[in-house]
Amino acid sequence: MNLLEQYISVRQHSVNICSSLKTEDYVVQPIVDVSPPKWHLGHTTWFFETFILVPYFSAYQAFDPNYNFVFNSYYETVGARVIRTDRGNLSRPSVDDIYRYRRYVDEAMKVFLHNTVLEKELETLLVLGLNHEQQHQELLLTDIKYILGHNPLFPSTEMPLKEEQMPHKSDFIAIPEGIYAIGFEGDGFCFDNELNRHQVYLQSYEIQQNLVTNEAYLEFMMDGGYEKFQYWHADGWEWVNKNQAKAPLYWHSIDGQWFNYTFDGLQKIKSTQAVCHINFYEASAFAAWKGMRLPTEAEWEVASKYFDWGLRWEWTNSAYLPYPGFQKAEGAIGEYNGKFMVNQMVLRGSSIATPEGHARATYRNFFQPQHRWQFMGIRLVR
Amino acid sequence: MNLLEQYISVRQHSVNICSSLKTEDYVVQPIVDVSPPKWHLGHTTWFFETFILVPYFSAYQAFDPNYNFVFNSYYETVGARVIRTDRGNLSRPSVDDIYRYRRYVDEAMKVFLHNTVLEKELETLLVLGLNHEQQHQELLLTDIKYILGHNPLFPSTEMPLKEEQMPHKSDFIAIPEGIYAIGFEGDGFCFDNELNRHQVYLQSYEIQQNLVTNEAYLEFMMDGGYEKFQYWHADGWEWVNKNQAKAPLYWHSIDGQWFNYTFDGLQKIKSTQAVCHINFYEASAFAAWKGMRLPTEAEWEVASKYFDWGLRWEWTNSAYLPYPGFQKAEGAIGEYNGKFMVNQMVLRGSSIATPEGHARATYRNFFQPQHRWQFMGIRLVR
Amino acid sequence: MNLLEQYISVRQHSVNICSSLKTEDYVVQPIVDVSPPKWHLGHTTWFFETFILVPYFSAYQAFDPNYNFVFNSYYETVGARVIRTDRGNLSRPSVDDIYRYRRYVDEAMKVFLHNTVLEKELETLLVLGLNHEQQHQELLLTDIKYILGHNPLFPSTEMPLKEEQMPHKSDFIAIPEGIYAIGFEGDGFCFDNELNRHQVYLQSYEIQQNLVTNEAYLEFMMDGGYEKFQYWHADGWEWVNKNQAKAPLYWHSIDGQWFNYTFDGLQKIKSTQAVCHINFYEASAFAAWKGMRLPTEAEWEVASKYFDWGLRWEWTNSAYLPYPGFQKAEGAIGEYNGKFMVNQMVLRGSSIATPEGHARATYRNFFQPQHRWQFMGIRLVR
Amino acid sequence: MNLLEQYISVRQHSVNICSSLKTEDYVVQPIVDVSPPKWHLGHTTWFFETFILVPYFSAYQAFDPNYNFVFNSYYETVGARVIRTDRGNLSRPSVDDIYRYRRYVDEAMKVFLHNTVLEKELETLLVLGLNHEQQHQELLLTDIKYILGHNPLFPSTEMPLKEEQMPHKSDFIAIPEGIYAIGFEGDGFCFDNELNRHQVYLQSYEIQQNLVTNEAYLEFMMDGGYEKFQYWHADGWEWVNKNQAKAPLYWHSIDGQWFNYTFDGLQKIKSTQAVCHINFYEASAFAAWKGMRLPTEAEWEVASKYFDWGLRWEWTNSAYLPYPGFQKAEGAIGEYNGKFMVNQMVLRGSSIATPEGHARATYRNFFQPQHRWQFMGIRLVR
Repeated sequence: MNLLEQYISVRQHSVNICSSLKTEDYVVQPIVDVSPPKWHLGHTTWFFETFILVPYFSAYQAFDPNYNFVFNSYYETVGARVIRTDRGNLSRPSVDDIYRYRRYVDEAMKVFLHNTVLEKELETLLVLGLNHEQQHQELLLTDIKYILGHNPLFPSTEMPLKEEQMPHKSDFIAIPEGIYAIGFEGDGFCFDNELNRHQVYLQSYEIQQNLVTNEAYLEFMMDGGYEKFQYWHADGWEWVNKNQAKAPLYWHSIDGQWFNYTFDGLQKIKSTQAVCHINFYEASAFAAWKGMRLPTEAEWEVASKYFDWGLRWEWTNSAYLPYPGFQKAEGAIGEYNGKFMVNQMVLRGSSIATPEGHARATYRNFFQPQHRWQFMGIRLVR
Repeated sequence: MNLLEQYISVRQHSVNICSSLKTEDYVVQPIVDVSPPKWHLGHTTWFFETFILVPYFSAYQAFDPNYNFVFNSYYETVGARVIRTDRGNLSRPSVDDIYRYRRYVDEAMKVFLHNTVLEKELETLLVLGLNHEQQHQELLLTDIKYILGHNPLFPSTEMPLKEEQMPHKSDFIAIPEGIYAIGFEGDGFCFDNELNRHQVYLQSYEIQQNLVTNEAYLEFMMDGGYEKFQYWHADGWEWVNKNQAKAPLYWHSIDGQWFNYTFDGLQKIKSTQAVCHINFYEASAFAAWKGMRLPTEAEWEVASKYFDWGLRWEWTNSAYLPYPGFQKAEGAIGEYNGKFMVNQMVLRGSSIATPEGHARATYRNFFQPQHRWQFMGIRLVR
Repeated sequence: MNLLEQYISVRQHSVNICSSLKTEDYVVQPIVDVSPPKWHLGHTTWFFETFILVPYFSAYQAFDPNYNFVFNSYYETVGARVIRTDRGNLSRPSVDDIYRYRRYVDEAMKVFLHNTVLEKELETLLVLGLNHEQQHQELLLTDIKYILGHNPLFPSTEMPLKEEQMPHKSDFIAIPEGIYAIGFEGDGFCFDNELNRHQVYLQSYEIQQNLVTNEAYLEFMMDGGYEKFQYWHADGWEWVNKNQAKAPLYWHSIDGQWFNYTFDGLQKIKSTQAVCHINFYEASAFAAWKGMRLPTEAEWEVASKYFDWGLRWEWTNSAYLPYPGFQKAEGAIGEYNGKFMVNQMVLRGSSIATPEGHARATYRNFFQPQHRWQFMGIRLVR
Repeated sequence: MNLLEQYISVRQHSVNICSSLKTEDYVVQPIVDVSPPKWHLGHTTWFFETFILVPYFSAYQAFDPNYNFVFNSYYETVGARVIRTDRGNLSRPSVDDIYRYRRYVDEAMKVFLHNTVLEKELETLLVLGLNHEQQHQELLLTDIKYILGHNPLFPSTEMPLKEEQMPHKSDFIAIPEGIYAIGFEGDGFCFDNELNRHQVYLQSYEIQQNLVTNEAYLEFMMDGGYEKFQYWHADGWEWVNKNQAKAPLYWHSIDGQWFNYTFDGLQKIKSTQAVCHINFYEASAFAAWKGMRLPTEAEWEVASKYFDWGLRWEWTNSAYLPYPGFQKAEGAIGEYNGKFMVNQMVLRGSSIATPEGHARATYRNFFQPQHRWQFMGIRLVR
């Protein structure tokens, strides 16, 4: 696919994800971390308008000057913006307005891409925009799940998730002590936080071939995992007590049977599926209960060629920090990754909600340790 | 009109108020006090279903058993409910679902009212339900105004407000000292908090024939009204500082000119209109600045036959407390008024948003002193 | 006693109250409403320094210019001040410093009072200062009780409380409908909020001769009083749930037996004592459970000559509002009462912690409805 | 020194630190992170009582059974405890009580140590207790500074701080790429978080010989360092805005001149001193402004033999995480370090407040990134 075809394909996928939503589902923001689907659709469009069309396509007329205020996420460079907690308070622009905005920008982008030979810098920006939209496609899925999964009617809906296929393996892979290289290398796209492939020294370790299952996690729960402080970080224990946490997100105990919310509505827990929607504290506590630990991100990356991944974002015990030689880009694009390199933990791999072709073994995802509304899981090291 | 005709007419008015809304406007809840319009439409319907159809119409089948959880407002008697702050997090039931619910309940009510001779108790309940819906019609208008007036696009929309006609009078009416009677008397409907007409002793006073205008309020603002603690209650002064209050709600200073948001969008302040959207603290501070005071509710009611009212809910300096001999009704209906008789101030009159025929001179409206999103105004006493 | 003798006597009483404290007890502020005892000792001294010595005694030199910042309570007129929540964060001035400050100001006051013929205005100020100090004497007792009663060691200490002598009467006094006068009249001292004796019209009522006992309150508790929303205001019910309230302040259930903290340490509840340390919500819920109500402040004042009072501040169902014709004084003294006339309920009578000779039947005490650390009790009306 | 002598010496130093305090200074807790000095004195004593005397000295009688509740800090294993925010609300036990407690425990410890041949495990515990007390000695100094430095009277007091002697060097030390070993090795004491000396691979880097001075930091401030988001982490920028941060802690601008609070009271900033009391966000922003970065903890440790350190705890860009092979100890002692290994950043070195002989080059101190009341400073890498 050339860039124009890629653009059309990626942009279409966002629309596909939302195709079974009702208008009302596009609007609400039940917690600050979850954005209204219509905001995601507008924000990803705004990205192309702001960073490509306005600066590089002289014939372009902005769709609506107020949209910069409405759809800027966190770019201080680009001006004032609706505060994040207020996204769910905006009934306007309407869903129709936003689809009109998408079509308007897409038409302009097509004309532009058709008639322009892209300089390297601009091509990089465009590809960044597509990867950015793919990241929001995963957020669309997780945010829609949160919106519907916290509705007392537990509605079911059609969603394009990848199939869950957990291999039947239970071995550990042994990696010997030594010097290894991690980080991105090659010609394709990567984010700036993956750059600078560099050497690290690893002690020997053994890593699970497979993810932790619901069955194993249930065992931890039955054994009082949520009631014994010994397994938990101090901050994790505070989180457990403050939230009266007893199970992963979306799990409900009904008449002594565990169910979880899926896009098909409330369903019985499937014991052989990979446990999902647990946070870093829960992942760590589970590992401590097992007498094992989470991998570092270097350990994960080095071993990743020996196991199957792609079902869950996998919590590592690495904090999100810059690689040696990391440099922030100039201008607004420089706000993409660097400024978040504190107070977050790294997740590796990808999930059933990650768009096809988006992830790589060097990909560094990151969230604060209390979050669990992404499709997050556990792989252990001993 | 007979009761059936009244029922049809009142129910239709709620639908009329919302006729120019977009689907998205029905969903959001920007602050806890503002409910999503779709919630108002569902809740008023639930009231008839729960208190009339279910107990009295044996053939009736509930529309959806989950709706009791979704649309109960504050009736502890009737069971668990969505917490108030969560109303804006519910994308379902959809707006279409709720209109279907309204039609379903309305059909049942028509059949029921057509075929039933109402006992006195049931008739009282029905009339209460209609008055309840009229109260929510005013809330629909004030909540829609809040939703659109806090949107950065300041959209305009068609809304059925009464015309503003402020009489050109500036006198004070003198009322002599003596014994007067206040409270409801007669055969028509009233709320339980108006009952027990009783005698009160009033000292002599003079009360404004007219409401305080925007022009007069602007004078207060220009004179540093929001910067001088002397005019304010201690709690009011704290409110000013915490909120950096400088003007009534919906007022915006643009290039040195004051505008306010109306259903026609941002408009220049009209100097001869009655000031609106000020809270009890602001009303009291204005009165103190003028060297006057707010009326008590008894003073207001006794004098009300001598002046025109109906443009603004008028803040009084009376706390919302029971009249002598006040009795709470049995059961859920008893939760209507009595349990709110603390920490609120009384407002008298009615506003341009109050449905035709809903208010009376004995009507007791009440809000906490910091609220200003209703159509609230000021009448002074000296 | 002449004014100088009164001054010496009142000032000495504050010191007496604190005579058994340890230095550490003077310092802490466990909740924002409770001030450190050393702050009370400094603030009452500051009152005489600021409002009498500095303006009227030309030879006077301020003890320390920083003390105005440290000991101003809420007088905006007099300048900036330590925020209330920070009073317990100040280790300096030390207790010794503050006693030195008291002696310094007392010496100056003695010289001043000895050599000066007081004008009426100044005499009024002085008497206000003494009454102000007496109010803080009661607060000293209630705040010390809070500090020691919330210490896990439950220390006992000597405190000058009046004796509890509850009369053995259980009748109701009947007051006929009619016009009565309330408010202060006469030559002695009163606060500005009691002024303007005026006529009120009362419906007939019957009021308890005696206060509600611990025994009666325990019956309410045993009958599920704290679990049934029907008895509570909506705000009261929220208070119960948020605080998991189950009993009056200072009550502890130990091995199935109720104890309460007193200045003698933890003691078994005495069944015939007047119930104490309940807030307005609890008083109202108790009354509702009994099928009765709290008196209005006018009802209390009119009937007060027929019953004994003085053990507990008695919650009324009157909001704290200005009497007809109430005027705020000019300047800082005008901040004494008027600015608090919203969001508070009136208490009448006095308590075992009120200094001898401080209270009157027309006295209007006031607190927000959730407070219960004062010696507050219940008298019912039917 | 043998262990008994060490015990006596370390214990005496805590008392020395407090020798110039007034009783009131021992009591207050102005923010949750700052503990009252009397709590530190009690808690360090409780450590020896709980972990040594009670389990190992059969003749020992606990001083007061309530003290376990009062002086437990965070050991879940050892039972319930006063919540941290409440430490400053406790006037009892009094300062005298706590000194009596110290003497009582010290006498018992002396008898015990004199008569007992310590097993290895017990000796380890004792040495841990001494190091624990030394950590609290530094906290005593920083907490007393906070208490006095936030008092509006800015009192001065005698405190045993080390002398500030900043070497006059301004070079960078170059470290070549390669494999290095970090972590503790040897016979002496170290904390469990330093254990397992292991190899790491470092890219080449250059590190400052000297700490960043006040003068250099002032330049950053003058250049708008606190107003330009570009230099800050997103969380850091939020911290700046929420706290209106403009300078290091304890800095005050008076008539255009910068002062800072020291134990000698308010003093002019000394330009050649190492900047102090800045948090991780400020350290990172300063580094970004300089076009450099903070070292990782491995980089710091490897280079530490080439520069002088000991004036400031030095922020690194390493999150506080376990070393390879880290194991939590069994029981309460296992709660010492491991459970804090999330959401904190590592600081290396030691400060002028660190007791003599307490620190080592492998020592890992850690705080959350917003804290700045410790003696924290900056060393840069390029």
